[in-house]
Amino acid sequence: MADLDLMRELTTTADTKIVLLVIDGLGGLPREPGGPTELEFAKTPNLDQLAREGMIGLSIPIARGIAPGSGPGHLALFGYDPVKYLIGRGVLESVGIGLELTPDDVAARGNFCTVDESLVITDRRAGRIPTDKCIELVKQLRPIKLPDVEVIVEPVQDYRFALILRGKGLSDRLSETDPQKTGLKPLPVKAHSPEAQHTADLANEWVARAREVLKNEHPANMVTLRGWAKEPGLHKFADVYKLRSAAIAVYPMYKGLASLVGMTLVQGLHDLDEEVAALKANWASYDFFFFHYKYADSRGEDGDFEAKAAEIEKVDAAIPRVLELKPDVLIVTGDHSTPAVWKAHSWHPVPTLLYAPGLTRRNDVSGFGETECLKGALGQFPATDLMPMALAYARRQIKFGA
Amino acid sequence: MADLDLMRELTTTADTKIVLLVIDGLGGLPREPGGPTELEFAKTPNLDQLAREGMIGLSIPIARGIAPGSGPGHLALFGYDPVKYLIGRGVLESVGIGLELTPDDVAARGNFCTVDESLVITDRRAGRIPTDKCIELVKQLRPIKLPDVEVIVEPVQDYRFALILRGKGLSDRLSETDPQKTGLKPLPVKAHSPEAQHTADLANEWVARAREVLKNEHPANMVTLRGWAKEPGLHKFADVYKLRSAAIAVYPMYKGLASLVGMTLVQGLHDLDEEVAALKANWASYDFFFFHYKYADSRGEDGDFEAKAAEIEKVDAAIPRVLELKPDVLIVTGDHSTPAVWKAHSWHPVPTLLYAPGLTRRNDVSGFGETECLKGALGQFPATDLMPMALAYARRQIKFGA
Repeated sequence: MADLDLMRELTTTADTKIVLLVIDGLGGLPREPGGPTELEFAKTPNLDQLAREGMIGLSIPIARGIAPGSGPGHLALFGYDPVKYLIGRGVLESVGIGLELTPDDVAARGNFCTVDESLVITDRRAGRIPTDKCIELVKQLRPIKLPDVEVIVEPVQDYRFALILRGKGLSDRLSETDPQKTGLKPLPVKAHSPEAQHTADLANEWVARAREVLKNEHPANMVTLRGWAKEPGLHKFADVYKLRSAAIAVYPMYKGLASLVGMTLVQGLHDLDEEVAALKANWASYDFFFFHYKYADSRGEDGDFEAKAAEIEKVDAAIPRVLELKPDVLIVTGDHSTPAVWKAHSWHPVPTLLYAPGLTRRNDVSGFGETECLKGALGQFPATDLMPMALAYARRQIKFGA
Repeated sequence: MADLDLMRELTTTADTKIVLLVIDGLGGLPREPGGPTELEFAKTPNLDQLAREGMIGLSIPIARGIAPGSGPGHLALFGYDPVKYLIGRGVLESVGIGLELTPDDVAARGNFCTVDESLVITDRRAGRIPTDKCIELVKQLRPIKLPDVEVIVEPVQDYRFALILRGKGLSDRLSETDPQKTGLKPLPVKAHSPEAQHTADLANEWVARAREVLKNEHPANMVTLRGWAKEPGLHKFADVYKLRSAAIAVYPMYKGLASLVGMTLVQGLHDLDEEVAALKANWASYDFFFFHYKYADSRGEDGDFEAKAAEIEKVDAAIPRVLELKPDVLIVTGDHSTPAVWKAHSWHPVPTLLYAPGLTRRNDVSGFGETECLKGALGQFPATDLMPMALAYARRQIKFGA
């Protein structure tokens, strides 16, 4: 029941370090009845030892039976009620590539796509054009001007770009133009409320002009726009938790999420080795480190049980280098489960480990895995409770009431 | 999820007895990795047997990661949402010494302190003057009159006293005068809102007059005022639970908390023996007994692991005398954890035991302790759920809905 106002009141500063290590999609399922999950199948001697010396349990990202997207899954880990605080995809894409949004901005996620001569979509991702091509096309789109608003277009990756309209009185109550399958034309942007009509008109004009610019290109001869969103104005970690916080992540979306809660983004990271090195290099400058590792989720989405287990083993092998830094609190968890047999984000509770030398109770567990977590001292708990616990175990909270 | 309106609707009367035995600060931590907690270290054959015959689990006083003060910790045990119902220290001190507050009262906790000739505080507790001296000084302060309000001053203990201003339209939206450290002057009382200005003026006048009275005393030559609060108007046990309730406690604060929810205070108790005797003597007259034992918390705050365990053993030794009375429901719990290694209230869940012959399920546990509680039938649950459970197991609730 993390309550950000309560946290703001109770948190204090201390000379302690917290690492929140998120193995994306960590939770899994057995591939045969009675068998191990990916995490249980993986050889994880370091995580197993931490489980025995610390405490384990299962976190529930949103609610029982609800499979989280990456945004809500991470917001919950950061202590923000993910049902209360919603973040549109457009905002995620934008902040993830380093754009700083203002309260005047409306952001959309753009896709380059392929249409035929009658404007029917034949490929929603324009043959997954390379990022270089995306950058070139975005340069062609930048000269498009709209009345009274600033237009910002930035390449993201492959066929994806971000579009931002900046101006007074804009609304994100807009429909998406991607019909979600081929064989249909892009949809017009519609206003979900009267105040949004002006923004919808601007968006439709921009799409029409973009089509003009792109019409002789191939395969990227059209665009779709999705995930309209305004910057959500979330409380910042420095304010509610009194933490100097840094995000160590490779993928734009996770950096974007971290930036929305005020974390400093460590830029230019490409793999786990660089992430661990960045943790060490920034150790003295921050109190809290959000450390994100993506590929367990990727392999889970691929349906590749053993490859997912291998990704978890890579993280396990990096644990000693994290422990050398002597964190006061190390949490290892996921933003959701991605069982290989399900090939998608699932609703299953997420194995979670809290290691805080000297302040944890004993749990009689043999290692870190979904079944052992059922016996762990943390029990099953809402993911939003993790940050209050992290702060308490890091000696950064005063008691509530006299 | 105790909801007092729901309780009011569902509770009924019955010829059954409930004992809520609160071992203050019961929960603990191992003093070495893998070792026992204080409760696990203590030899508690009677509690262990109750754990095996009843059900155990872990209660969460406020929320995961939140360390409770005594007020919120007890309110939760009494079934009142401690984040919703806040009680100021001034009210706690006042009701704890038997003062009955009215809705016209504003109460503060007063400290006698020592100031030098330039009014700078040199000792915030006036050398911890004995209670006799406190009583004498309070007598000197009583003649101070203020326009249109009644002024009540009562000694509490050592250097502490209670100040109550009684009159129409008074507010508790006032700042404290204790600067919280020596080397600073007492602060003026400031109003947090315009309506409170009149009360602030009265409080400042009283402090100035008190200084005049005390200026030739030593070491108690000044006062500070803290914890301004109005009587919170909590629902009463007789109303929401239909219980005739009695509080058996030695310390003023716990009696004060009990009186705020309408319990009758058994007065004049000094130790555990007297408390058990009082339980027996009042057995026929009440349905519910809040039985408070303080010293496990005290020894935890001292950081004395073995002394805390010894206090728990004293309570264990008293259990047979409680069972002789044949309570229908006996709950043994704490208002929070006070691990000796932490030397303060902590956020760790609290071992809890519910014994209700004939109505409990089996849990395969060997005894009463934090690690065994992880396996217990009660699971981990909000402390506010204890009262609904107590009433249900005491056959004092009808079902909800048709």
